[in-house]
Amino acid sequence: MAEIRHALTARRAEDFAAWYQEVIAAADMAEESGVRGCMVIKPWGFGIWERMQRLLDDRIKAQGHDNVYFPLFIPLANFEREAEHVEGFAKEMAVVTHHRLIAGKDGGLVPDPDAKLEEPLVVRPTSETIFGDAMARWIRSWRDLPLKLNQWANVVRWEMRTRMFLRTSEFLWQEGHTAHADEVEAREHTLRMLEVYRAFAEEDLALPVIAGEKPENERFPGAVETWSIEAMMQDGKALQAGTSHYLGENFARASGIQFQDKDGGQTYCHTTSWGVSTRMVGAIIMTHGDDDGLRVPPQVAPWQVVILPMLRDKPEDEALLAYCEELRAMLAADRAFGEPLRVLLDTKPGKAAAKRWDWVRKGAPVIVEVGGRDMEQGVVSLLRRDRLWDAASGKPAFANPAREALAQSIAGTLAEIQAGLLSEASERREANITRNVSGMDTVEAHFAEDQRYPGWLEVQWSKPTGPALDAVVERLKALKLTVRNVPIDALPADGRCIFTGEPAVERVLLARAY
Amino acid sequence: MAEIRHALTARRAEDFAAWYQEVIAAADMAEESGVRGCMVIKPWGFGIWERMQRLLDDRIKAQGHDNVYFPLFIPLANFEREAEHVEGFAKEMAVVTHHRLIAGKDGGLVPDPDAKLEEPLVVRPTSETIFGDAMARWIRSWRDLPLKLNQWANVVRWEMRTRMFLRTSEFLWQEGHTAHADEVEAREHTLRMLEVYRAFAEEDLALPVIAGEKPENERFPGAVETWSIEAMMQDGKALQAGTSHYLGENFARASGIQFQDKDGGQTYCHTTSWGVSTRMVGAIIMTHGDDDGLRVPPQVAPWQVVILPMLRDKPEDEALLAYCEELRAMLAADRAFGEPLRVLLDTKPGKAAAKRWDWVRKGAPVIVEVGGRDMEQGVVSLLRRDRLWDAASGKPAFANPAREALAQSIAGTLAEIQAGLLSEASERREANITRNVSGMDTVEAHFAEDQRYPGWLEVQWSKPTGPALDAVVERLKALKLTVRNVPIDALPADGRCIFTGEPAVERVLLARAY
Repeated sequence: MAEIRHALTARRAEDFAAWYQEVIAAADMAEESGVRGCMVIKPWGFGIWERMQRLLDDRIKAQGHDNVYFPLFIPLANFEREAEHVEGFAKEMAVVTHHRLIAGKDGGLVPDPDAKLEEPLVVRPTSETIFGDAMARWIRSWRDLPLKLNQWANVVRWEMRTRMFLRTSEFLWQEGHTAHADEVEAREHTLRMLEVYRAFAEEDLALPVIAGEKPENERFPGAVETWSIEAMMQDGKALQAGTSHYLGENFARASGIQFQDKDGGQTYCHTTSWGVSTRMVGAIIMTHGDDDGLRVPPQVAPWQVVILPMLRDKPEDEALLAYCEELRAMLAADRAFGEPLRVLLDTKPGKAAAKRWDWVRKGAPVIVEVGGRDMEQGVVSLLRRDRLWDAASGKPAFANPAREALAQSIAGTLAEIQAGLLSEASERREANITRNVSGMDTVEAHFAEDQRYPGWLEVQWSKPTGPALDAVVERLKALKLTVRNVPIDALPADGRCIFTGEPAVERVLLARAY
Repeated sequence: MAEIRHALTARRAEDFAAWYQEVIAAADMAEESGVRGCMVIKPWGFGIWERMQRLLDDRIKAQGHDNVYFPLFIPLANFEREAEHVEGFAKEMAVVTHHRLIAGKDGGLVPDPDAKLEEPLVVRPTSETIFGDAMARWIRSWRDLPLKLNQWANVVRWEMRTRMFLRTSEFLWQEGHTAHADEVEAREHTLRMLEVYRAFAEEDLALPVIAGEKPENERFPGAVETWSIEAMMQDGKALQAGTSHYLGENFARASGIQFQDKDGGQTYCHTTSWGVSTRMVGAIIMTHGDDDGLRVPPQVAPWQVVILPMLRDKPEDEALLAYCEELRAMLAADRAFGEPLRVLLDTKPGKAAAKRWDWVRKGAPVIVEVGGRDMEQGVVSLLRRDRLWDAASGKPAFANPAREALAQSIAGTLAEIQAGLLSEASERREANITRNVSGMDTVEAHFAEDQRYPGWLEVQWSKPTGPALDAVVERLKALKLTVRNVPIDALPADGRCIFTGEPAVERVLLARAY
């Protein structure tokens, strides 16, 4: 086994946080903007988000939702209505107080005191209350139900400590908001959208996730139930990748969302909301990245295949470009995952080797280099991002298929890469969940300092509430742990609560988390 | 000719403003949100915008642009850098001054005095300055040029008088920002994107537009040249539907966007920006709407064909639904304009006639009703939105093709509707442009009060600048007129300036405008 010279400086195994930052820079995905807590999402990072949007939007519409757009600004009064919602959100939000600037004393600009708003406006941190106002106007009778809406939007939560994609003051997301005639249907819908998120994460992003209910203390402010999908990052930490909330009648009562039922009576709706954000891009990095940079799952790769002609500023370049363009056209005419294949012929100025490593770091699933000798032999030099190195030689593992053979096999190769990323991540996650942990001492030992990336524990508990739950949360906090969720597909409880010693009622996952 | 009972109350010919508001409500496109100057875009309105986004985004990407995302908030200092830009924008903007709310004396929420921002942030009214900062970081050498970026975003300009879609405090748009190595290339790109807008407006939206340069007084703050596409609404007013700006070195100097050229010297870039907004939805309404509501061009109709089964709550409904579902599947398997056909089988509760008129008001291009008798005969009842009435009978002009014949002809029908809307609007516009107007008295007479919807005038002028231009602008303002643009394809000037009597240098369009 020869030594491999990886494309990044940081190593996942040594400094995961530094490695994460380096991947984002090396793959040219995003950067700090200079505006506090806000990032600039660059073409490769935004291209991945656009692909995610397209695939998730299709899934959301397939469930009968319509897209809409609601105002960025929310009047203060909306937040004052739902008590828990105020409590949970009325903290760190961006507040607009003026609508004009004028020249200040030092020649700079200042807010015009004469243009102070009578009532300040909040930049939306989420839109339950403003959707609620509209639902109250739009819903008259049972015939208007269910009302199933979704919007793609930017939201702002003033975060003190930010990290690109994972926690930024402004982020992009979709937020679904639905109103139903009864509890059963609303609860079903909450779980249906959770399942949409699970399928999206696993099938489109190759992210294995565990779907389950969040404990009481982690509920969305104002929700009756909050469900999540949780993904395991390569450092063993959990990342909440999407949530779905059953809101009961809480927001319906606060906003007056009522309907005339079939008997003529006035009844409050039951509502749901659910969201997925640009945070998911962070999950892709920390799940699929390696010491050479990002590896983008082919389903969401802006370019699935990148062709690099090895140009030499000589007359022969013309024939080489023609050979590559023919290949591009062949591949672009093909389909993968039910869509036209996305293939780039990269003719930007630059040395072929430098460009190869740029695309490796960006994580394009397949890189195809073509030099003069390849052309003469009718072949190409193929590099799969998921099998980058030849362990024996320590060199990139190039294959040399005939050009036409590549065109015939490419869709299958992409499907194989997509499936391979999912199974690799699934195996890693399963290897890092320890089950049947029965004592707090085992938990403490497991998360002791010397365990670098300790993974998750599955434990049984009695589902404490109120002060008893607070006590559990505090004990876990001392270990930097949280209860992630109660997995839907966990085995039934059969033992004692690890915290209270009482008979257990369900199994929960404990983990450190982003 | 029988009398026709139109679906709306207001008439375009009588009260255009009231008619516009009624179309928006009757087609269920948008409504006031309760937040000052902001609207809620409802599913049908947003569906049209989503279609516009998809088609324009494809055109923008085909020109080699990458999508990105920049922060919503812009530091004050950015606006202070470019003098004219400050002047033009530092007026009515939303200013964020606090990042937290706390409980106030009366129990409500108030901005926390302890959470006042050191430097206020502006909610972006446009993003030249913040793109400029990034371009200055990203561009090093001539190899990095051209840099061609675009973003889809919400922007805020605090408007005093708002009108849905046409002028709202928050609106949605795309803004392209590019940097080039030299003036020639940047000017070419400005015009290339103007041409992209022209093609998009005419080919996708069936909106005939006139592309040309705006006069000096209408330039974007900080631009060297501003170009626009101008569309004529049915009341004869002009609507600026898109703009493309050549910014010279102005923003490059303000932000420090420099590159090392091939000789090793440092040179400022030449930049461009261009945008199209949700205003374009207003243009579609005022161009294609009629006294029965909206007529959506098939290319941007969320549903191109709506099938309405005439259900009767009887056992026969099942067979009727199956017949309709077969039709839906046949149509959905077809393609129109290079995309799968968008067809809805509308089974929502409600009377068939009421639902028909809902879809007429929304402007679905083709409505297909199917009753029991239709099914027995293997036919359908077809209503084309562009030929709604049978003039002789005053009744809806239903046709009764065989179901299979409809499936075979539908793509052609949609293409015919799309082309028909464009030619109808083009003919109306040409009929309402008066050319070769040679005296101000003719202009005054033309725009006298008794002329209800006076259309546009083409006049010749000497292209005055500075105070001379100001004087012209004032004279026109007294007539509520503005110079729209200098059409690219206008004939050369051959007479005298209508304002100054000097030899004319070009032809301009005068109009009242939105």
